Amino acid sequence: DITLLGRSEHRLPASPDEAALETFPNRTPGRNYTIHLSAPDFGSLCPVTGQPDAAHVEILYIPDERCVETKSLKFYLASYRNHASFNEAIVNRILDDLVAACAPKQAIVRGRFVPRGGIQLTCEARHPSREIPLEWPAASLSTPH
Amino acid sequence: DITLLGRSEHRLPASPDEAALETFPNRTPGRNYTIHLSAPDFGSLCPVTGQPDAAHVEILYIPDERCVETKSLKFYLASYRNHASFNEAIVNRILDDLVAACAPKQAIVRGRFVPRGGIQLTCEARHPSREIPLEWPAASLSTPH
Amino acid sequence: DITLLGRSEHRLPASPDEAALETFPNRTPGRNYTIHLSAPDFGSLCPVTGQPDAAHVEILYIPDERCVETKSLKFYLASYRNHASFNEAIVNRILDDLVAACAPKQAIVRGRFVPRGGIQLTCEARHPSREIPLEWPAASLSTPH
Amino acid sequence: DITLLGRSEHRLPASPDEAALETFPNRTPGRNYTIHLSAPDFGSLCPVTGQPDAAHVEILYIPDERCVETKSLKFYLASYRNHASFNEAIVNRILDDLVAACAPKQAIVRGRFVPRGGIQLTCEARHPSREIPLEWPAASLSTPH
Amino acid sequence: DITLLGRSEHRLPASPDEAALETFPNRTPGRNYTIHLSAPDFGSLCPVTGQPDAAHVEILYIPDERCVETKSLKFYLASYRNHASFNEAIVNRILDDLVAACAPKQAIVRGRFVPRGGIQLTCEARHPSREIPLEWPAASLSTPH
Amino acid sequence: DITLLGRSEHRLPASPDEAALETFPNRTPGRNYTIHLSAPDFGSLCPVTGQPDAAHVEILYIPDERCVETKSLKFYLASYRNHASFNEAIVNRILDDLVAACAPKQAIVRGRFVPRGGIQLTCEARHPSREIPLEWPAASLSTPH
Amino acid sequence: DITLLGRSEHRLPASPDEAALETFPNRTPGRNYTIHLSAPDFGSLCPVTGQPDAAHVEILYIPDERCVETKSLKFYLASYRNHASFNEAIVNRILDDLVAACAPKQAIVRGRFVPRGGIQLTCEARHPSREIPLEWPAASLSTPH
Amino acid sequence: DITLLGRSEHRLPASPDEAALETFPNRTPGRNYTIHLSAPDFGSLCPVTGQPDAAHVEILYIPDERCVETKSLKFYLASYRNHASFNEAIVNRILDDLVAACAPKQAIVRGRFVPRGGIQLTCEARHPSREIPLEWPAASLSTPH
Amino acid sequence: DITLLGRSEHRLPASPDEAALETFPNRTPGRNYTIHLSAPDFGSLCPVTGQPDAAHVEILYIPDERCVETKSLKFYLASYRNHASFNEAIVNRILDDLVAACAPKQAIVRGRFVPRGGIQLTCEARHPSREIPLEWPAASLSTPH
Amino acid sequence: DITLLGRSEHRLPASPDEAALETFPNRTPGRNYTIHLSAPDFGSLCPVTGQPDAAHVEILYIPDERCVETKSLKFYLASYRNHASFNEAIVNRILDDLVAACAPKQAIVRGRFVPRGGIQLTCEARHPSREIPLEWPAASLSTPH
Ligand SMILES: [Ca+2]
Ligand SMILES: [Ca+2]
Ligand SMILES: [Ca+2]
Ligand SMILES: [Ca+2]
Ligand SMILES: [Ca+2]
Ligand SMILES: [Ca+2]
Ligand SMILES: [Ca+2]
Ligand SMILES: [Ca+2]
Ligand SMILES: [Ca+2]
Ligand SMILES: [Ca+2]
Ligand SMILES: [Ca+2]
Ligand SMILES: [Ca+2]
Ligand SMILES: [Ca+2]
Ligand SMILES: [Ca+2]
Ligand SMILES: [Ca+2]
Ligand SMILES: [Ca+2]
Repeated sequence: DITLLGRSEHRLPASPDEAALETFPNRTPGRNYTIHLSAPDFGSLCPVTGQPDAAHVEILYIPDERCVETKSLKFYLASYRNHASFNEAIVNRILDDLVAACAPKQAIVRGRFVPRGGIQLTCEARHPSREIPLEWPAASLSTPH
Repeated sequence: DITLLGRSEHRLPASPDEAALETFPNRTPGRNYTIHLSAPDFGSLCPVTGQPDAAHVEILYIPDERCVETKSLKFYLASYRNHASFNEAIVNRILDDLVAACAPKQAIVRGRFVPRGGIQLTCEARHPSREIPLEWPAASLSTPH
Repeated sequence: DITLLGRSEHRLPASPDEAALETFPNRTPGRNYTIHLSAPDFGSLCPVTGQPDAAHVEILYIPDERCVETKSLKFYLASYRNHASFNEAIVNRILDDLVAACAPKQAIVRGRFVPRGGIQLTCEARHPSREIPLEWPAASLSTPH
Repeated sequence: DITLLGRSEHRLPASPDEAALETFPNRTPGRNYTIHLSAPDFGSLCPVTGQPDAAHVEILYIPDERCVETKSLKFYLASYRNHASFNEAIVNRILDDLVAACAPKQAIVRGRFVPRGGIQLTCEARHPSREIPLEWPAASLSTPH
Repeated sequence: DITLLGRSEHRLPASPDEAALETFPNRTPGRNYTIHLSAPDFGSLCPVTGQPDAAHVEILYIPDERCVETKSLKFYLASYRNHASFNEAIVNRILDDLVAACAPKQAIVRGRFVPRGGIQLTCEARHPSREIPLEWPAASLSTPH
Repeated sequence: DITLLGRSEHRLPASPDEAALETFPNRTPGRNYTIHLSAPDFGSLCPVTGQPDAAHVEILYIPDERCVETKSLKFYLASYRNHASFNEAIVNRILDDLVAACAPKQAIVRGRFVPRGGIQLTCEARHPSREIPLEWPAASLSTPH
Repeated sequence: DITLLGRSEHRLPASPDEAALETFPNRTPGRNYTIHLSAPDFGSLCPVTGQPDAAHVEILYIPDERCVETKSLKFYLASYRNHASFNEAIVNRILDDLVAACAPKQAIVRGRFVPRGGIQLTCEARHPSREIPLEWPAASLSTPH
Repeated sequence: DITLLGRSEHRLPASPDEAALETFPNRTPGRNYTIHLSAPDFGSLCPVTGQPDAAHVEILYIPDERCVETKSLKFYLASYRNHASFNEAIVNRILDDLVAACAPKQAIVRGRFVPRGGIQLTCEARHPSREIPLEWPAASLSTPH
Repeated sequence: DITLLGRSEHRLPASPDEAALETFPNRTPGRNYTIHLSAPDFGSLCPVTGQPDAAHVEILYIPDERCVETKSLKFYLASYRNHASFNEAIVNRILDDLVAACAPKQAIVRGRFVPRGGIQLTCEARHPSREIPLEWPAASLSTPH
Repeated sequence: DITLLGRSEHRLPASPDEAALETFPNRTPGRNYTIHLSAPDFGSLCPVTGQPDAAHVEILYIPDERCVETKSLKFYLASYRNHASFNEAIVNRILDDLVAACAPKQAIVRGRFVPRGGIQLTCEARHPSREIPLEWPAASLSTPH
């Protein structure tokens, strides 16, 4: 299933529609454990102005039968580079694509976007959805502070 | 509904009464997710002395049917710049205006004001109101520390 | 009720007995919200040696009918400057005086004293008292660094 | 000469043209010593868009016969709050006004503006002007890091 | 009961067996409040190699009838300086001695030892013992980070 | 049982199969207390490319009858240096080997790997496994940040 | 001369060849002063692998007759986003283009690229070139750490 | 000459006029070496308003025949606690008193005062006075950052 | 000349004798500019004990005719992984090999080793050698602080 | 010459008179390079009160014919543990002993002592002695900040 790891680099997919999240079997499916993937240099385009947006994107999940392969994740995230989408839509789509690819027991996706107009936006979505107690986001381990 | 994004900049509203928080439809209303908006350069005036106050204002909410558009939020917050109001009143009003504009499932507003007379004041209000366990505020992701 | 704000500065009270915490009406008493007051440059005297102690004093409370006015708080805290008292007694007294002045729904007072003899002492008291799960103090928003 | 210190607060001047930097005599004019004044919450307006700019303004100088009085400096800096001016012009004008007010032996003014469009601008001017070796700015003592 | 505070300094006790933790009456025994004592420069000896160990030792407790006097604590902790003991034993003994001295309602002791062989060890013990949910230690207020 | 501590250094084991985690009796088995072991300079090899991986590995556990001896842990961790294994497999194996060696009441192992391809991976596994509430990892006390 | 500031946003230029650095007259050309421009979210492509590179690009210069307009700089820097070029070539080209656009008295350009293969590269070039004493780069004011 | 060290604590002198800086002989007068004394909790009073000022005071000097005894320095600095004086006058007086007490080869005194009215003031004076190149203050080792 | 970049990964060389630093032509040889290469995860072995050492290795140089290719540098540095050598010898050899490979105008190599026995060692060597003013090392841009 | 490295640990020497700094030949004596040794957990006793002092001791030197062996340095520094000496005397003696042991081309020793009575003392001495420009100490690479 894994087509990218260990080979020479490939061209970037032009959009998330053209990219694929590859997976590999989880070898300890009986144990609930977490995988945290942190991509501090995510880029996209603003759908209104066409200008670049930059963000720190993080994924945290508990795998079920399959895990996300990180090299395909790198290509998947890079496919947003010239893709125009609202910040909130990006975070929700990454979560949807992750769930479709590996059906994790639980997952959270967070995107922390660099300030525009003096205001910074962070969006965070969780699967499965539930009534969550609202609390201020804390810096994760991979925050470049 | 959105009148500001993608156009040339406008003049600042003279007070929050003249400003409007615009909204757009939440595209994933079935999922509980959070949006964190952080404005580290908020300004207002002291109603007693007329002197400038500075604050870091943050909003965290779970959208229901509509989301706040960030460019109108920028104008809304800038409308306090020459508006005289007590710190506690500012935080409570921003929460009231947010709730009136987009009726979020949950919301918190926090204003961290720069020290006056050697004392720093931080005010935080939550919607819907509830018995909250009192605990020291922790630094959020966007705190400029 | 408020006699200090907006006037020229006054002389310091010689001790907390001579100082008064002034209050003003809470305009949103129906909502539970928090006010955090942070005074990083508190001073007092050691009752045994007469030497100066320095501390970072913080107050966090949920107002009920009345709020503490910050300029009177500044004078109240400054009244400890030449007052000899043990660290634990200072924190408990500030909490008692706060409760007496504005009868908050909940309140916490914390004093973090600079090291003496290579040992740093932090004391924290809560109103109303209750069985609290003991856990290490975390840095609050107003921690000076 | 000093009209502001120790009195009740006054209204803000509407622009730097209406504000005045007051001074007092330097009591140790025979010694070269430095005074560093740091104002982390400076505000102004963009002359093209009318939007607020925020900056950290710092002044460092060696007094000759007179020193700048800090309360008048507070009012002077606050007078830029609703004044439209380019970043570079603000820094150069503050230096010009400082030199006109107290004729220091040497002076530097630096303004570090919050990012606009993802780019942060810092401007620094020195009196008297001279061939300076260009080197990256280092964090000063008052940098809010 | 207090023999050390306010007198000239004494010689160091040669081991914890020779040292005593002195106490004084808790003046607000009806209120549950916490006292945090942080000693960043603790020293001991490795029982196998005889080499010095260094640690940051912290105590957090809720007093019942009596509080620990900090000058006797300084001498007590200094008594480990030439005492050979394993890291885990040191933390458990300090907790035992604290409980014996003042019978606190609750107490935690933590020792964070400097790395040996590239591995850092932190030990934390609690009184009364209970099933605690295992979670990563967070930096306390007095952590010298 | 302890063969390494206090002797001259030995050669490194070539793989975790050749290494052994030694233990010693827990002297306070009646008390639930925690031991945190932090190894910021862990190394391994990527099983696909053969390139070095670097990680910060942490172990946190509540001992039952026996504790892990830290010098054998140092050798055990060093045995991964030329061992090719996936990040997730390394973390799960360290947990399995720890449980086999000392049967702790509870244990967590976390490996924070340095970025590859701009993405950082952190994996965390817990014994006994259970339904854990998914939340962002926070920096532990020994994080070298 | 300035075509971008104050208008609605434009499309991004496809490469630095298509972008232009606009300038405006320096109003205090008789004074040597510095302008520091910091762009923490620069992106480009690796010419060998086609993969995205990310960098923090900084410009520091002493203007002569003209200053760089920051909105055109934003577009100029964004034009590298899909442009394949080596790190060293990017830094040298930005310096060349800056010198061609505004002929500064002095200028430095620095690009700090995110790690690839565990190695971080920072390149810094200066105009006019000269024998510089080699010394380790220090963190500038705008360093995002 | 040394009257304070090793005895029980004394009462605080009421002003710097009543305090004395004690000295002891420099044992290595043939070597130029530096002594840095850092007092992060200095207090004084504003001569106009009577309100407390707080500062971090630092002394750096090269001793000649005599060194300053630190316990007398502690009492000397504490004598400013209820003394009304301008910030600039405090720093210049400490330097004068230090020079009178021990005639150092060189000395610098710096006082970094906590913000008043949103402006922070740092004053630094040097003995012997000389034409100094004006440059931004950098954080010293003892800066509480 | 460049054999590694853009291909699949290769096996690690067993020692620096088997590794080669590849170079490419400097395209702007007429300009003195700097390249800083920072490798925070360097590993080697202690020649006496056989135990792993870890270090942060940095290279700073001004290229003349040729630049170092970073992928070959990665392999070159990884070749020390199982190579036994003293800290000082490693730093001097890296400098020698760099000079042999690309004959830079100037170069500095620094290795900051993790503590052994509670003492941290940093070694720094420069080409060409010269009388350097001894001063404390400052944190470089890539220091992981 | 080297008697300690690679053997089992020895007993600590009781004072610096009983300890010896061992050396080994410098293999690149023709090159001026620096070695920085940082010992953050140094301990000694106050000669007046007998109480423990703690310090961060650093050595920086340019070796001539011989280098200091770090394991003997560890024992040498540990010999101060129960040795009563003034802070200034400790720093000057370490420099004297270093010069006697290996006759470096240049050397600096710095001791940063933990605060006593609210005042922190740092002493720094240099060999050979010379007229040094007095400037505030900056944080070195190994400062634990
Ligand atoms: Ca992480
Ligand atoms: Ca601000
Ligand atoms: Ca945020
Ligand atoms: Ca606060
Ligand atoms: Ca300052
Ligand atoms: Ca220490
Ligand atoms: Ca504390
Ligand atoms: Ca590392
Ligand atoms: Ca730890
Ligand atoms: Ca970035
Ligand atoms: Ca900057
Ligand atoms: Ca800046
Ligand atoms: Ca303070
Ligand atoms: Ca210091
Ligand atoms: Ca760097
Ligand atoms: Ca170092």
